[in-house]
Amino acid sequence: MFKLYYAPATCALASHIALEEAGAAYTTERIDFKANQQNSPEYLAINPKGRVPSLVTDRGILTETPAMLAFIAQSFPQANLAPLDDAFAFAQAQAFNSYLCSTVHVAHAHKMRGARWATEESSFADMKRKVPQTVGACFALIERDMLRGPWVMGEQYTICDPYLYTIAGWLEGDGVDLAALPKVADHRKRMAERPAVRKVMAEHQG
Amino acid sequence: MFKLYYAPATCALASHIALEEAGAAYTTERIDFKANQQNSPEYLAINPKGRVPSLVTDRGILTETPAMLAFIAQSFPQANLAPLDDAFAFAQAQAFNSYLCSTVHVAHAHKMRGARWATEESSFADMKRKVPQTVGACFALIERDMLRGPWVMGEQYTICDPYLYTIAGWLEGDGVDLAALPKVADHRKRMAERPAVRKVMAEHQG
Repeated sequence: MFKLYYAPATCALASHIALEEAGAAYTTERIDFKANQQNSPEYLAINPKGRVPSLVTDRGILTETPAMLAFIAQSFPQANLAPLDDAFAFAQAQAFNSYLCSTVHVAHAHKMRGARWATEESSFADMKRKVPQTVGACFALIERDMLRGPWVMGEQYTICDPYLYTIAGWLEGDGVDLAALPKVADHRKRMAERPAVRKVMAEHQG
Repeated sequence: MFKLYYAPATCALASHIALEEAGAAYTTERIDFKANQQNSPEYLAINPKGRVPSLVTDRGILTETPAMLAFIAQSFPQANLAPLDDAFAFAQAQAFNSYLCSTVHVAHAHKMRGARWATEESSFADMKRKVPQTVGACFALIERDMLRGPWVMGEQYTICDPYLYTIAGWLEGDGVDLAALPKVADHRKRMAERPAVRKVMAEHQG
């Protein structure tokens, strides 16, 4: 039995969907970002980074979305959520997730989280203004070179798909025009129809 | 036979050391960042992101350090560079590398790469001023909670070690006081003594 700590509208959605797709036995606990619960002593004891997601397992606590997604795929091989028997194909899936984590999510974070990297209000405003361009450039590359279709890795639905779906869900808020990204838009629609995604979204939006 | 594209003083060092530790057959090619070679049409054909490292394999090209490190560990299991038979332990190693990639390296990048996320000189200066604090906070957490010793994951030397060594090599330049990080400083010394690290550093510094 796992326990997932999440907050709505965060990247924790990716791991939540993956757990559901894997058929894992899990519970969830919502962290209230508006009340700054992620920095409470109770939560910092679970994840000293003060971020979500965190996954409590009987072996200990895991953090970091790409690592959690690979762990879920490896823990439930029958769900076929990653090419586990092909190190190169597995690395391609991991490279996609690493790009989302370290470049795309980071570009997005400069909209609201400028205080992580700067101090002045003028810098925050400057960062915020650039988000449509930086996130747009990332997604132009995803559209052109990375998203094979119908799923990220091609015919096989993998741990890359809920992660892309999660971050693509922020595009309108980031000021990126979805009309220029037909494959990404199509992927989002296809994802939204999956029963696992519907179930998890109902909880996040509830 | 692999081919690694790298540039000195970049995170490509981690994959280079891992290839050497794995006993892999590989060649290297140095990309000249001062001449902006990473954005040349020839290199963008290899890695459209215009970054290093890139690893050319007979199956295709891989990018993104955490994915490449896991790939090297899985491709050379006899080198014992990751706990491949234990999904939870493997995920812990991956979580460490993901933190380096998406948080620690990103904090460091705000020193010289502010133009990725903002436009104004005043923002770049503001970001630069905060780097000692942000990178310092990351390493305080690594020192306190993550680096088990003697290696990152404990007794077993893994793909986490060359990656930590690479980013810890930037601490003085980032204005972080190593005296407050005795375990990190000790890890750096222990790494520098390894034959694989000496060989690779000689190439990078040559």
